[in-house]
Amino acid sequence: MAYRAAVVGGSGYTGAELLRLLAGHPEIEVALVTADSNAGAAVGDLYPSLATAYERITYESVSAADLAGLDVVFLCLPHGESQALAGSLVDTVAHVIDLGADFRLPVADYEQWYGEVHTAPGLADRFAFGMPELYRDEITASRHVASPGCYPTSASLALAPLVAAGLVEPTGIVVDAVSGVSGAGRGLKATSLFAEVSDNVNAYGLLTHRHTAEIEQALGHVAGEAVQVLFTPHLVPMTRGILSTCYARPVAGVSLTTDGLLGGYRAFYAGEPFVHVTDGSPATKATLGSNAAHVTVRYDQRTNTVLALGALDNLVKGASGQALQNANLVLGLPETTALSAIGLMP
Amino acid sequence: MAYRAAVVGGSGYTGAELLRLLAGHPEIEVALVTADSNAGAAVGDLYPSLATAYERITYESVSAADLAGLDVVFLCLPHGESQALAGSLVDTVAHVIDLGADFRLPVADYEQWYGEVHTAPGLADRFAFGMPELYRDEITASRHVASPGCYPTSASLALAPLVAAGLVEPTGIVVDAVSGVSGAGRGLKATSLFAEVSDNVNAYGLLTHRHTAEIEQALGHVAGEAVQVLFTPHLVPMTRGILSTCYARPVAGVSLTTDGLLGGYRAFYAGEPFVHVTDGSPATKATLGSNAAHVTVRYDQRTNTVLALGALDNLVKGASGQALQNANLVLGLPETTALSAIGLMP
Amino acid sequence: MAYRAAVVGGSGYTGAELLRLLAGHPEIEVALVTADSNAGAAVGDLYPSLATAYERITYESVSAADLAGLDVVFLCLPHGESQALAGSLVDTVAHVIDLGADFRLPVADYEQWYGEVHTAPGLADRFAFGMPELYRDEITASRHVASPGCYPTSASLALAPLVAAGLVEPTGIVVDAVSGVSGAGRGLKATSLFAEVSDNVNAYGLLTHRHTAEIEQALGHVAGEAVQVLFTPHLVPMTRGILSTCYARPVAGVSLTTDGLLGGYRAFYAGEPFVHVTDGSPATKATLGSNAAHVTVRYDQRTNTVLALGALDNLVKGASGQALQNANLVLGLPETTALSAIGLMP
Amino acid sequence: MAYRAAVVGGSGYTGAELLRLLAGHPEIEVALVTADSNAGAAVGDLYPSLATAYERITYESVSAADLAGLDVVFLCLPHGESQALAGSLVDTVAHVIDLGADFRLPVADYEQWYGEVHTAPGLADRFAFGMPELYRDEITASRHVASPGCYPTSASLALAPLVAAGLVEPTGIVVDAVSGVSGAGRGLKATSLFAEVSDNVNAYGLLTHRHTAEIEQALGHVAGEAVQVLFTPHLVPMTRGILSTCYARPVAGVSLTTDGLLGGYRAFYAGEPFVHVTDGSPATKATLGSNAAHVTVRYDQRTNTVLALGALDNLVKGASGQALQNANLVLGLPETTALSAIGLMP
Repeated sequence: MAYRAAVVGGSGYTGAELLRLLAGHPEIEVALVTADSNAGAAVGDLYPSLATAYERITYESVSAADLAGLDVVFLCLPHGESQALAGSLVDTVAHVIDLGADFRLPVADYEQWYGEVHTAPGLADRFAFGMPELYRDEITASRHVASPGCYPTSASLALAPLVAAGLVEPTGIVVDAVSGVSGAGRGLKATSLFAEVSDNVNAYGLLTHRHTAEIEQALGHVAGEAVQVLFTPHLVPMTRGILSTCYARPVAGVSLTTDGLLGGYRAFYAGEPFVHVTDGSPATKATLGSNAAHVTVRYDQRTNTVLALGALDNLVKGASGQALQNANLVLGLPETTALSAIGLMP
Repeated sequence: MAYRAAVVGGSGYTGAELLRLLAGHPEIEVALVTADSNAGAAVGDLYPSLATAYERITYESVSAADLAGLDVVFLCLPHGESQALAGSLVDTVAHVIDLGADFRLPVADYEQWYGEVHTAPGLADRFAFGMPELYRDEITASRHVASPGCYPTSASLALAPLVAAGLVEPTGIVVDAVSGVSGAGRGLKATSLFAEVSDNVNAYGLLTHRHTAEIEQALGHVAGEAVQVLFTPHLVPMTRGILSTCYARPVAGVSLTTDGLLGGYRAFYAGEPFVHVTDGSPATKATLGSNAAHVTVRYDQRTNTVLALGALDNLVKGASGQALQNANLVLGLPETTALSAIGLMP
Repeated sequence: MAYRAAVVGGSGYTGAELLRLLAGHPEIEVALVTADSNAGAAVGDLYPSLATAYERITYESVSAADLAGLDVVFLCLPHGESQALAGSLVDTVAHVIDLGADFRLPVADYEQWYGEVHTAPGLADRFAFGMPELYRDEITASRHVASPGCYPTSASLALAPLVAAGLVEPTGIVVDAVSGVSGAGRGLKATSLFAEVSDNVNAYGLLTHRHTAEIEQALGHVAGEAVQVLFTPHLVPMTRGILSTCYARPVAGVSLTTDGLLGGYRAFYAGEPFVHVTDGSPATKATLGSNAAHVTVRYDQRTNTVLALGALDNLVKGASGQALQNANLVLGLPETTALSAIGLMP
Repeated sequence: MAYRAAVVGGSGYTGAELLRLLAGHPEIEVALVTADSNAGAAVGDLYPSLATAYERITYESVSAADLAGLDVVFLCLPHGESQALAGSLVDTVAHVIDLGADFRLPVADYEQWYGEVHTAPGLADRFAFGMPELYRDEITASRHVASPGCYPTSASLALAPLVAAGLVEPTGIVVDAVSGVSGAGRGLKATSLFAEVSDNVNAYGLLTHRHTAEIEQALGHVAGEAVQVLFTPHLVPMTRGILSTCYARPVAGVSLTTDGLLGGYRAFYAGEPFVHVTDGSPATKATLGSNAAHVTVRYDQRTNTVLALGALDNLVKGASGQALQNANLVLGLPETTALSAIGLMP
């Protein structure tokens, strides 16, 4: 194979998902998988789903020296941890694809929403924001990529055609989203237990969820002006999937129809291999295990509101699939290599 | 026991739930259970959960003659079917509690949202709208009750203190709600199959869901002015439970805080046995199997928006429990008889 | 109320379930709830389902002195912990109902299956084995009760009529059971995470699960001879419920039919308020939230095998409900007080 | 592409799964998809997961004339329907791969277990039984293949090494299996509704499930003598996955150990790309969406019983994946083409 890669933090869900996808990649070989907390364990012990694909690979402790010289290093770490490691990587490995939050936002925004000091502010401009459909030029022009979060991808793809065309007010936008539990990761907390999640829905992070900043950043980038969003995430009893249901007010004087909006969406996403504009209501299950995002839009004349919906698999298009899409881009490979738009349904 | 009751349409989920609750009622005896499509079957065959409580009861075909003279007749029928039956009941049975949609709305609203002619318009004013916390006086002054829908109960209880106090604009209100699948009933359709619902979320009834009219009616009743709502329901992979997440804009000039709003909610619902105002984020599972509704509220200064949330069990407070609460009211029994506010968790 | 009770270990699932049931008990008042790891927290913070029922109760640290003089103390502790506490309770409180494993087995059996030394062997004969349908005389003659485990209750009730009548060989019995995840408790482990349990089934404790000893004990008690069982438990994606599917070989010379066996089961359980013998195949959901056990039996002529099945809610009849049933018995109250045989379905 | 295929009955779950797998096949082109009940609908309307892969394909009514000349015709029909169609296909298309039950068993066995007359008995010997690991020679020597059922594949792969080596008695074998709901197909029945399946487990087809005959046939083929099995299937709340837990008695005089048995299993399945012998307990989720089967074995000295377990995805290795594996075999393609052994986990 042409390229050698490492997955740093390979025992969490995004790491494991990346390993699943990379197992089918014809040009990238997984040379190293690290996981400090599980060092010494076989990949197949934690994820028997991967046992046959990574028979001889065990988790190792992370070491910048071992990573030097690799073509791609995927960082699947809790927020805050990439900052510590990235300094020793940005010039020693060809491409860093960070799946964490550390380099997605301007430093000031990061510090505001995450409530902590950024320890590597000088590296922030070394990373492009990795949402290919909205930032493809920036990504291909960059060496390293900060791959975005699951909610921001879902909400931004659902709303982008509206704000790009200036059809809706940039304030008063509501993003009401539901997510499967894998988005909370493999960490042990009572709120992730089956017995607590099953037959249950509740909202969390009311008013203050950190992904708000990413949604506002991506939509502001497309709009060319500041966009303000109120974002409410919910946990629902499923493992994977995010559905964002978004509400926006038309700008004064514009005349909207659902058909017109759907046509605009199809034009906006024409040629995109992973964004499917549907007339129906997007179902998360249609994207399960795939890198697809399904979006739709409606205009409600009665209340003069635009409704936009976006569905995706939070671990694929919302995390590891998009990270691989970014890796394909920076490596100059076909963007869809080892990525599918076909979901596992039922 | 003091009163004799019938459950008409007792093979569906709301009928079965009513039977579950009535089995523990000290003053109401179930004299008759009808279900045309399952006539002849034992209740325990369809619902083995009820086998020991209704050992000698089999479903019968519905007949107005058999119902005459009963103290309470609960109608658990698809919308449209109560209209045909109610004419022969309103003067021959003491109390009709209709769990369907036929007598909840003014006839014109019914015909607009349900898209069909109402065949018993003259009976509409014989039924009070059965949301006790907002219509208790009307209910106790009425002989018959139209018990409201699951979404309207959840959303109205979440928003009522706001509109009652005139704190938010009566237009531009968004209700984004998720529901367990039992809300769709026991009817056979592909969208209710486990394999289609599991690991899946999607929105439905975009812009046009019929419960919109009930929400607007209840909130308008409390507000004393017309209220306009955009309502988006979603199906999530659980059997019971509804969570409504609601967004409203403060009226100009009012100064809001979350603490102040929570205090207002506690005052508004003081003494209500089934509405629990919580500082936390309401979880549907906390209400499972109970007649409780849990609500909370937040003010977001950043976007100048009020966020209100309400959780309940759609088959209990959203249907059969509330119907029994209404029956207790019209019979002059303690409102909480045979109803609990304690959920099944985990 | 007539009696004052404590729940020791009230922050776990069996403790919370006991609190749910006790909230409806007319004769037992909850005076004290302890939970060392959550001392100071309000019951309603961990279980908002219980918020309205226990508004003024917070978890306290356990102290034998605080428990002295109470009428009933329920111990909901991990195995091994009751041993340390029971010595100071057996003579200072009227009745101890232990939901843990410490006093269910003869000391030698405990030490063999649990692999550790029993630290209070002298107390073992102070506790009756609390499976009322099979040990009612022993329970009412005892002051304290060791309430049995979830799997043993399910399997023993399913098989007891067979071994009591000497119809099947006492060896070669297979118990293949599935359980909801709440049986693993509220402890934080990866195997209890929603994302790991959902869409998954696997067997665990192969050949060596500790409940084997309890099943053998209960069946041996009924049979009047030693019974040997191979028990395989499985974890399935639901919160509550156990179904035991049991296989046994008829003794030589006996002539069996399914009808005859069902008749024998009905006779064996005649008058039992919580055991329902069904012609159909028992569904765990029919018992959800209730203290019911549903059982059935079949004879397969083709392979000359008897098949017996038993379903129950592991947190109720498999734990807290049965514990309360035992408390009712030792207090001389009607055995069914505050316990229902009606399940929550759907 | 080299070969042109049709999927007959492409609107059910096995049909849709086959379309998902075929979308990634480099040598087989889907020329035609039929579904009488959904004729005229777009594939993407029923399965939005497939929308981008089959944008221009709509379901057609089945017609033998349209199928003539194709290289492979997959029949995904309810049992009984392949018999009517196969007569006109066996000589006009290169290869028929039947996913139904019609040609899996000798005619007499079919008629006994399915309780109906076989209408095309003369075709029975035109089909090989399509379980490649146990019948590879027969498959490659045949033109047409009857692909086996989900339970038989799981149980047979779990038990085959034991009976092949003559280590266990051929009678008294118990297969206790659990299945996800997709095994029941997309047909509308109350027992497949989410609200009935969720939080529920029950056994079905007690003593008489038709897959018993296939398990006995496959094991008998391997054993070289008649094998008798008592099979009990259960429905559990998940969409995909089967776990078979199997019990067998060692033949007299043989000395067994778990390690020895595991070694035997590894030797038996050496080189098999889709059977993974694991030391741990197989989890269905490890196989989700893949063509893998995970198996393990234990010897219990205490009860002198062998325990064997097998897990797979009922729609892939248990149906459509195995059908494609068979198609690859008869077409002379690499057996693993377009099939993966990596599961979707979590």
